[in-house]
Amino acid sequence: DSLGIGEEAALVDAETGEIMGIIEISEKYKIDRDFENSHVYRTTDPKHPGVAKVNEQAAVNIAGRVRALSEGVYPEKYKDLYLRPAESRAVFAEKGWSKVAAFQTRNPMHRSHEHLAKIAVEVTDGVFIHQVLGKLKEGDIPAEVRTEAIGAMIDNYFVKGTVIQAGYPIEMRYAGPREALIHALIRQNFGCSHLIVGRDHAGVGDYYGPFDAQHIFDELWPGALITQPLKIDITFFCTKCYGMATAKTCPHGKEHQINISGTKQREMLSKGEPIPPEFSRPEVVEILRKYYASLNK
Amino acid sequence: DSLGIGEEAALVDAETGEIMGIIEISEKYKIDRDFENSHVYRTTDPKHPGVAKVNEQAAVNIAGRVRALSEGVYPEKYKDLYLRPAESRAVFAEKGWSKVAAFQTRNPMHRSHEHLAKIAVEVTDGVFIHQVLGKLKEGDIPAEVRTEAIGAMIDNYFVKGTVIQAGYPIEMRYAGPREALIHALIRQNFGCSHLIVGRDHAGVGDYYGPFDAQHIFDELWPGALITQPLKIDITFFCTKCYGMATAKTCPHGKEHQINISGTKQREMLSKGEPIPPEFSRPEVVEILRKYYASLNK
Repeated sequence: DSLGIGEEAALVDAETGEIMGIIEISEKYKIDRDFENSHVYRTTDPKHPGVAKVNEQAAVNIAGRVRALSEGVYPEKYKDLYLRPAESRAVFAEKGWSKVAAFQTRNPMHRSHEHLAKIAVEVTDGVFIHQVLGKLKEGDIPAEVRTEAIGAMIDNYFVKGTVIQAGYPIEMRYAGPREALIHALIRQNFGCSHLIVGRDHAGVGDYYGPFDAQHIFDELWPGALITQPLKIDITFFCTKCYGMATAKTCPHGKEHQINISGTKQREMLSKGEPIPPEFSRPEVVEILRKYYASLNK
Repeated sequence: DSLGIGEEAALVDAETGEIMGIIEISEKYKIDRDFENSHVYRTTDPKHPGVAKVNEQAAVNIAGRVRALSEGVYPEKYKDLYLRPAESRAVFAEKGWSKVAAFQTRNPMHRSHEHLAKIAVEVTDGVFIHQVLGKLKEGDIPAEVRTEAIGAMIDNYFVKGTVIQAGYPIEMRYAGPREALIHALIRQNFGCSHLIVGRDHAGVGDYYGPFDAQHIFDELWPGALITQPLKIDITFFCTKCYGMATAKTCPHGKEHQINISGTKQREMLSKGEPIPPEFSRPEVVEILRKYYASLNK
């Protein structure tokens, strides 16, 4: 609150103490938490992880032009994944890709994710597997293991040159539909024409309807976003379809789907139990199994 | 040649003798077979079935406004399939479909065709399975058996309301890329936003490159066609992918693909040999098997 309009302030990483940038303050206002929460998160429930973050913020918000001084640990720590927007656009131009679908993930990819990406490969020039770098939740697979697992899937199950693996620093806020919009806007900067938006994209709990994050794109005014959603329903292996399917193409019902929850996967992988090939690729399973075995030591 | 500009002539069905319509002659010219063949078929080889048809035509072509008097046998003979363009557009409007992909077929659908249609279902509001009615080639499955087989696939493997089965009278000319354009134009009249264009669409022999019928759409001037191609590569079951795939999504090579030629299928079905579920749906196989059994009697 001691800072005035027109003044400059250093932006410091609270964890490392590093000065990340300088903000030229052009606006200053008292935070209205209920207003912000109900508009961004569609709820004021303090149990919502995004609402909880807003509620922890200081009482005054500042806004203004930012000059970045540092990109933090990312360019060094994630050398093979880190791509700046100008760099990804250059890669797409070099490959002659004009229609590019971004796939946002913070997890290793099983067959359900592969199917999403492959539907996108069919209708675009290529897919940009764009991973969340940065803070992880307890129990999440670390970035280097995830990268290796995704790499094994790309090498063994995709046609060479149809997929690019990359990463960018962002924290999940679980704002569902609103977060889908910012995910699309970010991909617009990275040069992607499409963002894959699945069921309950960036959702948490029961705060959003399964297709809210798809519908919100239809409410935008024309030209609001260049990057468009590639809307796909939930994906799974169906034993009656005898192959991968989505809720839009499979009429058979849940009892025929092969699905394993995240918790169950971790348990099975830790115990060395076999993961069915309908759910995950053996090359991917092997990498995850090694990781969990290293934790048990 | 005895007809003059401004005169009217009756258009008679050579097979039935029925008067189909009246043409008001506004243009008359001597046919230049080589010119027409090389532009439409990209060849003057008389072994090409389309070229052969042109070569059988009379020496003079007439053009002009046509008034249709009859739709022939189609509305009666194919009651359940026959849909006029105004009718299909009304059906799409009623269902709220704005993005509709047409799938052109003159054969029963196996899993490779199902996969094409399902990719289309993912990215559109629905698929219009639009069958060729009319003259068949020796060995082709008759329309009523084909309809029943396609119906069995739709009923058992598609989500209700995502697919419409219909038919229209047309003869194949095997003009490859040029025929893809007229197929798209026809679907534009029927209210479809897209036409599925697979590998070697409407091709025959080695006259066209596998993607000529996809590339020709890129050579059109802007606005030439409203209906756009939904370009999909060849589809198949791959044992390494352990599911359906296309040449754009599967890196594994032909030795892992389960494919049965049309000739081989007929032989297996006639002899009652099992058709693998990777290739065709059992519900479809049963209908075809019954048909071939009835031929053997």
